[in-house]
Amino acid sequence: MSSKINCLIAQSGGPTTAINSSLAGVIHEAIQSTTINKIYGSLNGIQGVLKDDLFDLTETFHIDSNNLSTLVHTPSMFLGSCRYKLSDPLVNDSDYHTIFQQFTNYNIKYFFYIGGNDSMDTVNKLSAFAVEHHIDVHVIGIPKTIDNDLACIDHTPGFGSAAKYIASSILEIAHDAYIYDTKSVSIVEIMGRNAGWLTAASALARTTYNEAPHLIYLPEAPFSTASFVSDVRTQLEKRNHVIIAVSEGIKDPAGMYISANSTGTDQFGHVMLSGTGKYLENLIKNTIGCKVRSIELNVLQRCASHISSQTDLDEAYELGKNAFRLATQGETAKMVTLTRTSNAPYTVTYDSTDVSNVANVEKCIPREWINEAGNDITQELIDYIYPLIQGEVPITYQNGIPSYLSVEHLFRR
Amino acid sequence: MSSKINCLIAQSGGPTTAINSSLAGVIHEAIQSTTINKIYGSLNGIQGVLKDDLFDLTETFHIDSNNLSTLVHTPSMFLGSCRYKLSDPLVNDSDYHTIFQQFTNYNIKYFFYIGGNDSMDTVNKLSAFAVEHHIDVHVIGIPKTIDNDLACIDHTPGFGSAAKYIASSILEIAHDAYIYDTKSVSIVEIMGRNAGWLTAASALARTTYNEAPHLIYLPEAPFSTASFVSDVRTQLEKRNHVIIAVSEGIKDPAGMYISANSTGTDQFGHVMLSGTGKYLENLIKNTIGCKVRSIELNVLQRCASHISSQTDLDEAYELGKNAFRLATQGETAKMVTLTRTSNAPYTVTYDSTDVSNVANVEKCIPREWINEAGNDITQELIDYIYPLIQGEVPITYQNGIPSYLSVEHLFRR
Repeated sequence: MSSKINCLIAQSGGPTTAINSSLAGVIHEAIQSTTINKIYGSLNGIQGVLKDDLFDLTETFHIDSNNLSTLVHTPSMFLGSCRYKLSDPLVNDSDYHTIFQQFTNYNIKYFFYIGGNDSMDTVNKLSAFAVEHHIDVHVIGIPKTIDNDLACIDHTPGFGSAAKYIASSILEIAHDAYIYDTKSVSIVEIMGRNAGWLTAASALARTTYNEAPHLIYLPEAPFSTASFVSDVRTQLEKRNHVIIAVSEGIKDPAGMYISANSTGTDQFGHVMLSGTGKYLENLIKNTIGCKVRSIELNVLQRCASHISSQTDLDEAYELGKNAFRLATQGETAKMVTLTRTSNAPYTVTYDSTDVSNVANVEKCIPREWINEAGNDITQELIDYIYPLIQGEVPITYQNGIPSYLSVEHLFRR
Repeated sequence: MSSKINCLIAQSGGPTTAINSSLAGVIHEAIQSTTINKIYGSLNGIQGVLKDDLFDLTETFHIDSNNLSTLVHTPSMFLGSCRYKLSDPLVNDSDYHTIFQQFTNYNIKYFFYIGGNDSMDTVNKLSAFAVEHHIDVHVIGIPKTIDNDLACIDHTPGFGSAAKYIASSILEIAHDAYIYDTKSVSIVEIMGRNAGWLTAASALARTTYNEAPHLIYLPEAPFSTASFVSDVRTQLEKRNHVIIAVSEGIKDPAGMYISANSTGTDQFGHVMLSGTGKYLENLIKNTIGCKVRSIELNVLQRCASHISSQTDLDEAYELGKNAFRLATQGETAKMVTLTRTSNAPYTVTYDSTDVSNVANVEKCIPREWINEAGNDITQELIDYIYPLIQGEVPITYQNGIPSYLSVEHLFRR
């Protein structure tokens, strides 16, 4: 057995509900591979390699085990995360030497890094270093981010589940708002500093009876407070309850974040950035004067695994499997990708790209997918998101709450 | 058919995910009754009676219809709501004359009002007026409120579903918070101005691997900011990530709402009540200085029907059915109730009480169910809530989002 080689997986960046499905996909292929002896997981991303915080996952997960299927449905990152940026090796290569020494110590030939933009930068640097120094370690990136802002891929794992949560929540918020016969405005603040994909997903809450959200504002279109108040007034003439979806990252025509305008002071006299939704709530209160409420979906939009998209988790799993295959085929410095080959019926193919094409590039919504007034999205954008939120996941509940996995619980007690 | 009598149902107060299940329960019994001709629904509570905004529900709902089962799972109030308080009839009885004239016009003999405290006041006043004026109309109240603060009932419909949402969300937030190896504090603000039942439900997020929430603060125990900061410091010595559940209604020892202390000013120079969670977030930032985030569960805790408690919806349905039976047995001025007869296995019996015992009374958590330090709850309270969040509902999804019913859609297009 000692002649066999080992592989290592780590996760990095912000949470999604799909990132553990990709982890499970890699584990699935690695278990089935005849060349792999041990499957290691690194705690807290690349930091776990530097700190020698590795777990042997091999015995815990079997193809048909409850653990593997529970891992698929577990939110956030089973192996923890980090926000660690590797130095340019020309400036300081000490981390690189530590990391590759660790790979030698553990006989690791394949390293899989599941993450977003910054994680692909790590994949890029490590694989380049390995090639340059003729080190036989293959480094493959697996994409994830709720923000859907990665280049070279039709959409990112994690986005579809967050989109499903957002659309479902907006519908439920609409039911909640519609009950009184007095005028009201509800402002729902959705994640996205520069890319509005998540906020756009709110449009999928529209049904035969629900037109909410009635207004949608994205970071990709300049935001004018005057137009906003005017838009809300127009909507309030048409209906009692106006529901608005707004990205946290909307910016004024000068490029300043609207949230940065919120110059309240807290109980200590410190300037308080109260957030985009709260700012707009005050704006409506002080201009129109009707009942107004702001709702921040906050972290639940990225961790509510109980309402994940089955399509999203399936794709994330498949990408994990493909990453393993790619590595064993001798590839390195790649990120696995998927391409939409048809929208109705929805089909995708799996492929890969040089990770250098992805690292540090941000994909935003094309302006032509936003309406001219900058307060709604087009049907093309709805059609693009629609297939990604389809399918419900079979969550197991224990004692009335979802049953998930914890690395601490499995490996540390 | 014209010799048969009709019944009327209305909903009032704030939304829950169980209130439509009680409506469905009344409809279920009324359909099966041989004495009932038409089942009317009043739009926006008692206001719909005053404004002649009644719908004939009889044809739309059948016992085995999709409509009736979808109604059970639909959040908020299908018939809309109001916050309308009837005058003392000795002061002004004009509303009473209008209402009972309407009942005569529509041949309504049974009126069912589903709501909380204030709605039971309406039931109380209308039934007393009918008795005093020898009007043959039976008025029965059906309880609901997420706050669980009604007297004479073991727990209120709507509470169990909100509790399940809160416990599940806290677990998912814990997964989200645990990923980094740096210190952090997450403060989750939960509804409840005077009663802490909902915040107490956060304790049901605890599992074999998750001890969050690590601190719980309720309106029933006086809140000291000094003790709070000290509690958080102690927790941060034991673990990296501290998760705190706090009622919006916590008060200082003088009885002042903590949220009322938040004296920031907004962009218009107006005093801004930023909310309890935000206030405590600033407090931790300015005293301890670690990473801190506040999360307001907001309206989703009362409208996220996709994760309702089956136990809760079943009980709400049964209470609706019992209300109908009670009315046809000649009762009036009653609220249907349930009593817990055993906790393991969990069993309840259904009964009723004079609505005058319930109206305008508020049930809070007994002090002995809160720990001495006032920062956690006892096992008795956990045992009390535990059965109420059990069971998952079979939600149907359409186009990736939950399938619900809308009165506008069914009756107004």
